[in-house]
Amino acid sequence: MNTTPPGTQDAAPGAEPDWRRRFARFIERPPVQNALLALILLNAAILGMETSATIMARWGDALTAADRIILAVFVLEIGLRLVAHGMRFFRDPWSVFDFVVVGIALIPAAGPFAVLRALRVLRVLRVLTMVPSMRRVVGGLLAAIPGLASVFAVIVLIFYVGAVMATKLFGAGFPDFFGTIGRSAYTLFQVMTLESWSMGIARPVMDAYPYAWAFFVPFILIATFTMLNLFIAVIVNAIQSEHAAEVRDIERVVTDHADQDAAAMRAEIRALRQEIGSLRQAIAQAAPEAPGMTGPSRPAS
Amino acid sequence: MNTTPPGTQDAAPGAEPDWRRRFARFIERPPVQNALLALILLNAAILGMETSATIMARWGDALTAADRIILAVFVLEIGLRLVAHGMRFFRDPWSVFDFVVVGIALIPAAGPFAVLRALRVLRVLRVLTMVPSMRRVVGGLLAAIPGLASVFAVIVLIFYVGAVMATKLFGAGFPDFFGTIGRSAYTLFQVMTLESWSMGIARPVMDAYPYAWAFFVPFILIATFTMLNLFIAVIVNAIQSEHAAEVRDIERVVTDHADQDAAAMRAEIRALRQEIGSLRQAIAQAAPEAPGMTGPSRPAS
Amino acid sequence: MNTTPPGTQDAAPGAEPDWRRRFARFIERPPVQNALLALILLNAAILGMETSATIMARWGDALTAADRIILAVFVLEIGLRLVAHGMRFFRDPWSVFDFVVVGIALIPAAGPFAVLRALRVLRVLRVLTMVPSMRRVVGGLLAAIPGLASVFAVIVLIFYVGAVMATKLFGAGFPDFFGTIGRSAYTLFQVMTLESWSMGIARPVMDAYPYAWAFFVPFILIATFTMLNLFIAVIVNAIQSEHAAEVRDIERVVTDHADQDAAAMRAEIRALRQEIGSLRQAIAQAAPEAPGMTGPSRPAS
Amino acid sequence: MNTTPPGTQDAAPGAEPDWRRRFARFIERPPVQNALLALILLNAAILGMETSATIMARWGDALTAADRIILAVFVLEIGLRLVAHGMRFFRDPWSVFDFVVVGIALIPAAGPFAVLRALRVLRVLRVLTMVPSMRRVVGGLLAAIPGLASVFAVIVLIFYVGAVMATKLFGAGFPDFFGTIGRSAYTLFQVMTLESWSMGIARPVMDAYPYAWAFFVPFILIATFTMLNLFIAVIVNAIQSEHAAEVRDIERVVTDHADQDAAAMRAEIRALRQEIGSLRQAIAQAAPEAPGMTGPSRPAS
Repeated sequence: MNTTPPGTQDAAPGAEPDWRRRFARFIERPPVQNALLALILLNAAILGMETSATIMARWGDALTAADRIILAVFVLEIGLRLVAHGMRFFRDPWSVFDFVVVGIALIPAAGPFAVLRALRVLRVLRVLTMVPSMRRVVGGLLAAIPGLASVFAVIVLIFYVGAVMATKLFGAGFPDFFGTIGRSAYTLFQVMTLESWSMGIARPVMDAYPYAWAFFVPFILIATFTMLNLFIAVIVNAIQSEHAAEVRDIERVVTDHADQDAAAMRAEIRALRQEIGSLRQAIAQAAPEAPGMTGPSRPAS
Repeated sequence: MNTTPPGTQDAAPGAEPDWRRRFARFIERPPVQNALLALILLNAAILGMETSATIMARWGDALTAADRIILAVFVLEIGLRLVAHGMRFFRDPWSVFDFVVVGIALIPAAGPFAVLRALRVLRVLRVLTMVPSMRRVVGGLLAAIPGLASVFAVIVLIFYVGAVMATKLFGAGFPDFFGTIGRSAYTLFQVMTLESWSMGIARPVMDAYPYAWAFFVPFILIATFTMLNLFIAVIVNAIQSEHAAEVRDIERVVTDHADQDAAAMRAEIRALRQEIGSLRQAIAQAAPEAPGMTGPSRPAS
Repeated sequence: MNTTPPGTQDAAPGAEPDWRRRFARFIERPPVQNALLALILLNAAILGMETSATIMARWGDALTAADRIILAVFVLEIGLRLVAHGMRFFRDPWSVFDFVVVGIALIPAAGPFAVLRALRVLRVLRVLTMVPSMRRVVGGLLAAIPGLASVFAVIVLIFYVGAVMATKLFGAGFPDFFGTIGRSAYTLFQVMTLESWSMGIARPVMDAYPYAWAFFVPFILIATFTMLNLFIAVIVNAIQSEHAAEVRDIERVVTDHADQDAAAMRAEIRALRQEIGSLRQAIAQAAPEAPGMTGPSRPAS
Repeated sequence: MNTTPPGTQDAAPGAEPDWRRRFARFIERPPVQNALLALILLNAAILGMETSATIMARWGDALTAADRIILAVFVLEIGLRLVAHGMRFFRDPWSVFDFVVVGIALIPAAGPFAVLRALRVLRVLRVLTMVPSMRRVVGGLLAAIPGLASVFAVIVLIFYVGAVMATKLFGAGFPDFFGTIGRSAYTLFQVMTLESWSMGIARPVMDAYPYAWAFFVPFILIATFTMLNLFIAVIVNAIQSEHAAEVRDIERVVTDHADQDAAAMRAEIRALRQEIGSLRQAIAQAAPEAPGMTGPSRPAS
């Protein structure tokens, strides 16, 4: 059981025992993956039905039991994958995600952790890790984030400065909106989404501080212009990869064509050289008695 | 009437009778199409006027009569097209659309189907299928949808998970907003459109659950960022087809130019070969007595 | 004064009298144009000051007088241009715009036309026709419109159908929002801008008609998706002209380069022909007694 | 101390004394820059904590003292840079920004300048000038502005005309919204952001002036369409620089390829010329007695 067959392709120093690879292969088999996906979707439906008091009154016990069984299957699956891949399991972010969302459901959701009950539905997001096309979408979204880090840092800074200023300026008069830095940041986020920024926030504030517009209007202009640039960065990134493909396409076609032209030309030149070769023969035959014809004075052609 | 003329071009095994094709040709004739378009627009005006109590009080009977006559013409037209094309009629999505929107008007709009009365105005959308430029726009919109399926599935998943979480977290306190999954999904759709998300939803909820912002702010960020990527996917698709045209343009011009260059060069080389050919002849004439000139030792040029 | 000098370059059958062209040249002279621009900006300031009761109480007479004088100058200017260009004046849309906005100010703004008083400030928009860079911006905006006609027609159709449906469905219960087609169209425009669509419109309607969301949510999705495509069409148009320039750039550089390569090659081939020419001479000199060397059997090289 | 060493590289007429350059080098040293950045971030935290009454009650004195010390360091740093760079300091916009935001903190924030207290947090924005990646983002945002000047001027004009019209039309009835040009401009800015434009502004106004929609709907369409073009201008600018890079890439690859083809061809032709050269030698050797072989009739090869 512990003997590794010789000649294994990826035989690392600590080569994996046979049963580990058998587990890994078992879990990655398409029918197993499809069954898991079906279980996740079934679990999603059950978690949805659990929110209905009417349904819970009639089938509550059955639903809770089904939920527990599915959870047990998930725990088993994660366990198998942990055993199969060892510590490498935690190097794959999708695996870590699966581990966390299944792990949340195991925390006894009572007392201070009661809110975790609601987080158990995050398990449904495992669909994202199972369906390749959705995984690509999420991967694409996450891949766009590092390129946005600088713009994001600028926006955070603008928010922090704006929140401190708003707290100092309007905090005393409008504690609900601007009482603390946290509240100010939330209110400024609301202002940036343009939700009730004027009727709900700026106009009441302007009744007390008539020049408050000189804070809100520039804040909106700066925040939305910076956000716009965040969006444009995403668009330009997307177009950039388009362009790379386009450049390759143009290169391929144009150079293919140039190669054909060059090949045709080389054929012509080859014909020319043959003609000259036959010409030289003709000359050699016309003047066979020439002494130096094959002598050392002839340069290397 | 049933005899198919010999030599019909698209004579399939079950070849169409003559009158079928005559019907099809009659309906596709430009004057008939224009008359139908005019009828649809007239019908649009009548359906609009029918919403006015004042107009209905004076000309109600005439309008209803005109509406019925136009509907009869539409039924006749669809009937003719059904007879002309047979089952192929249902393979064209535009035809199916016409069939459905005309069919809705024939359902007796009473009792449980009273709401279908309002759907009868959908008939006006037949303009979309009649005017080629509008048909292209709608076709373009619909063509963009399959490419968006994955992003759309991710958004639906985010909504489902968000709705279940919101129902569990806030359902008890705010039954109007988050009482059931359906209500939560509607409220989250409203939040995603940023309509009154803070003043109307999040702030009242935060009065009861102070940490509710930790649900709403991330939800807005995730939902709008994913929506943004939906939009960007549409933009990049549109640009992609632009690019394809551009690549073709560049290829055409560059390769045309290269071909001209190559042709000029080949002409030069051909001239060169002629020159050499004449040179060989000159040599042959200069030394006609050479014995091996036409002998077997001469290699094939 | 009426004698046209002979040999005028653009001497059409009805050639323009000398003074006409002198008027045209006078108005188009930079100092005159700058003076007009200054007058328009001064007029803008005056029209702004006229809205303040305090300023009008003190300097009202002076402002009104200045406004009238400036208006007189504008009328004179338009008159000169009309005389100078004749009917061609009305072929330039910018001129027609000037004519209309100045003309509005001449209508006695009393009785039913009192609202035209407010339109007199449109005169300030003449800045757009005077400053070339702003004229380009407006020209660009207007140039984008024809390409959007089809999408715009689709949106109008969606609005009409939506308005008729909403009037039939909700008109009885909510006459303020959906009482007539006009009111419904206005409300749907508000819904499309997402302003209070849920809290202000859809939720109250849903209290009476629980399934109203089935109208509003699809309407928002369809309307915003179509609007999005309107925006994308503008973006793609802008990028398209970018691309045209790019294609030209690539063509120019690549073909220039190819031309240089071809020129170098031709120089090489020319050298080759010279060499062959000298070779033939060498042969001719080596065998001068050959009879047919310059005979008719030599093909045209 | 005042003696400039001979042979200084950038020895301008008024060459800088040694200690000036030593100051400049000292401030630009990475550890000094990092220490300054740490101080700015610490200062940001202190300024944030100062908004909390609870924290100020316990550690107020320490925080105020720390704030003053940090401010003193900033003043010292700016002073050193001023001494080091002289008047050139004011030519760098980032330096001017640092100078202004540090200077604001030195104004005694009392009496009419009390509001400047809130502006002291702008000091935190110095992070933007210290972190290169954030500096690039801000630089990019500012670089986009000149290209937008014309569109921006058009928007300002539209706002001015709209504000004057709205003041004249609705000022009497709605002094809070449209009482003065300033209030109208603010209200129209709110309308352009689509915040409560209908429920909060247009519908109340329409109750008094039923045709008010004829002002608001076109204003929204024109303002958002123009804003859209502002955004598109930013996107197209961003794509433009993309394109420049793409054009260079395509050029490089295609011309490199063409050069390789051309070089190969030239090598072929060179070989051909050598062949012909050797051929001529062969003929010369075959007929060495030819008299004019090296005569003047031979063209320059």
